[in-house]
Amino acid sequence: MKFGGSSVADAERLKRAARRIVAAREDGNRVVAVLSARGKTTDELVGLAAEMSDAPDPREMDMLLSTGERISCALCAMAINDLGHRAISLTGSQAGIVTDTSHTKARILDVRADRIKTALDEGQIVLVAGFQGVSTSHDVTTLGRGGSDTTAVALAAAVDADVCEIYTDVSGVFSADPRIVPDARKLDVVSFEEMLEMASSGAKVLQLRSVEYARNHDVRIHCRSSFEDVTGTFVVGEQETMEHPLITAVTHSTDEARLSLVGVPDEIGAAAKIFTALADANCNVDMIIQNEPLEEGRKAEVSFTVPRGDLRVARETLEPIAAELGVDSIDAVPEMGKVSIVGAGMKSHPGVAAKVFQVLAEERINIEMISTSPIKISCVIAADKVPDAVRALHGAFELGAGGIQAEAPIGEQAR
Amino acid sequence: MKFGGSSVADAERLKRAARRIVAAREDGNRVVAVLSARGKTTDELVGLAAEMSDAPDPREMDMLLSTGERISCALCAMAINDLGHRAISLTGSQAGIVTDTSHTKARILDVRADRIKTALDEGQIVLVAGFQGVSTSHDVTTLGRGGSDTTAVALAAAVDADVCEIYTDVSGVFSADPRIVPDARKLDVVSFEEMLEMASSGAKVLQLRSVEYARNHDVRIHCRSSFEDVTGTFVVGEQETMEHPLITAVTHSTDEARLSLVGVPDEIGAAAKIFTALADANCNVDMIIQNEPLEEGRKAEVSFTVPRGDLRVARETLEPIAAELGVDSIDAVPEMGKVSIVGAGMKSHPGVAAKVFQVLAEERINIEMISTSPIKISCVIAADKVPDAVRALHGAFELGAGGIQAEAPIGEQAR
Repeated sequence: MKFGGSSVADAERLKRAARRIVAAREDGNRVVAVLSARGKTTDELVGLAAEMSDAPDPREMDMLLSTGERISCALCAMAINDLGHRAISLTGSQAGIVTDTSHTKARILDVRADRIKTALDEGQIVLVAGFQGVSTSHDVTTLGRGGSDTTAVALAAAVDADVCEIYTDVSGVFSADPRIVPDARKLDVVSFEEMLEMASSGAKVLQLRSVEYARNHDVRIHCRSSFEDVTGTFVVGEQETMEHPLITAVTHSTDEARLSLVGVPDEIGAAAKIFTALADANCNVDMIIQNEPLEEGRKAEVSFTVPRGDLRVARETLEPIAAELGVDSIDAVPEMGKVSIVGAGMKSHPGVAAKVFQVLAEERINIEMISTSPIKISCVIAADKVPDAVRALHGAFELGAGGIQAEAPIGEQAR
Repeated sequence: MKFGGSSVADAERLKRAARRIVAAREDGNRVVAVLSARGKTTDELVGLAAEMSDAPDPREMDMLLSTGERISCALCAMAINDLGHRAISLTGSQAGIVTDTSHTKARILDVRADRIKTALDEGQIVLVAGFQGVSTSHDVTTLGRGGSDTTAVALAAAVDADVCEIYTDVSGVFSADPRIVPDARKLDVVSFEEMLEMASSGAKVLQLRSVEYARNHDVRIHCRSSFEDVTGTFVVGEQETMEHPLITAVTHSTDEARLSLVGVPDEIGAAAKIFTALADANCNVDMIIQNEPLEEGRKAEVSFTVPRGDLRVARETLEPIAAELGVDSIDAVPEMGKVSIVGAGMKSHPGVAAKVFQVLAEERINIEMISTSPIKISCVIAADKVPDAVRALHGAFELGAGGIQAEAPIGEQAR
């Protein structure tokens, strides 16, 4: 069971989480619960660090940030002990989460769950501080924002759990953001592949890395509400998904930005130089388009999108390189968005892309860039057009609670 | 170097501590600094725990409280790194502070300072989270309130430091509380024995356990201000103290309470029963007086003092025992205080006690209980008489900045 920051934000919510955990224990389960930091705690700690330094040392940042989850776990253990059950809180290190030494964005190398297993065998409920581990050089590390989901999935794999329940402030995964599409449907089940595409194209309910980890270790995820006791959405292997809808969901993001390098000399290695520099600067480049010149001018245009928060760094990184390459200009469009449709069934249905473009054209929405995968089509559009695009696509593919789902014939499903 | 909670209370003070540490490093020293939690952090964490449970689990309490010092250390390390020096923060566990398993009041069993020594050898400044360690069963423990002083002294012993500097919001150890006695004198040097008596009789500048640890391991303490760069008070072995004043200081406390059991049957084991129960209830009994009945009535009166905060628990603990023993009544006087004079020189001067009683009598202050050690005389008096008593004794023994100190001849000094 994993409880996010909003599910443990104050004493009342922490006690509710404690009761939820105890109920699962009383149903006969052995329970490991992963907790995030309370509400705004991590932001407050980041604020304290900013008061001390403009560029806080990453190792010290991890020492600082890891305290938030420990506080949640200790407090929740107290509440569970008061409910007549025995609980023990463990730090990431005590829980055996061994990571590499990449502070603030460490990767899990190993999970040595002996102490958890011993505590479970003794009948204890085990609470683990999410988002953190201990590096191979014995320093406290953190897994990056949202890392508590990854902690939960990694522990579920290590103890061979029946299910990894992710408790959150929404009741599951929806066919679109219900704040934009009122008749969005809660999905009963989605495949790992679909969830990966959804997480990477704007769905915030599960962290991308945790879904990758779940797919790689075949951990069933149950994404559900911490405020009401109803079934949420199961994220499972494709062999387990009983429905095979053509399209599962429409996802979106409104915080994209586009950068274009105009007049890039057509020389070998120019693109490599540009994108290596951006990677080194930790800019998260999403879509890339290169327009080759048809005539003899021998200059190309390279466009790509980054999260809006990375725009300034991306631009500063590119300026010296653009000068060096003899690029004519760098154009930035900060207010971009992205709308995507995701569905395992589209693999075998070639007409989906055409329908997407048709629907957006009817809404008079200009598509600036397109990228596709076997189960996803994404279009970059103006940020302010995103809500209209989401509603139009959701309606056109009949994804709503009242809609009739087009199903792909089972025989056509293939990995 | 150890910085207390008020010395790291906000960003500005933490930066000042960082500059102080860097200055010591630039003077050519190898520096280990122990930090407390920021200002009110520990109280806030205790408040969070109180929201969760009326009797929080001690193991979880330690997990919770240990976060405060880690936050201070990580933030200070960031500031030092910005000043161009390399700093590393360590938890109690990482610093090798091994304790027993008595959660919330653990005792240090061992200090395995290898990691500290390695970091010092690499030229790093080492910051250690005070007040905490790791138990022999791999749980986070805390050393009890004020435990950061003990951490500092224990590390100073482990790395064989030249001096353990305790930075605080006062400029040293005084001959009396300057808020009560305006001409109180800052002491240049006091012996461990004197400091122990002073700490146990109300002087708050150093924690009792840290002084015991310093005496046992012969760690020189320099108690000084974190706000001005002046020499404070050295606490050292008696062989090092150059002055041998008759009286060193007047200490006091105003938060005592007295409990009296009236009509205790004169049977063997009654006192043992009473004080064993109080010890089991964690009541900190200070002075004890038993009045044996002279006539044949065969009933005694037993009186003792406890910190006022322990009064309720002490009374509740005693009620069933008093009933069992057939005690006539339990009387409580909550508003008691204590005034003490401390001085290594008084060992060889029998007239000191008589003078104390004389001075208090002249002030018309009633002495309720008396206890003495070779270098201390304590009198329990009404709490509201304490300031007058302190001023009168300080003046009578000429301890003030303008006073002429009576010195004990060197030859008479003996352990």
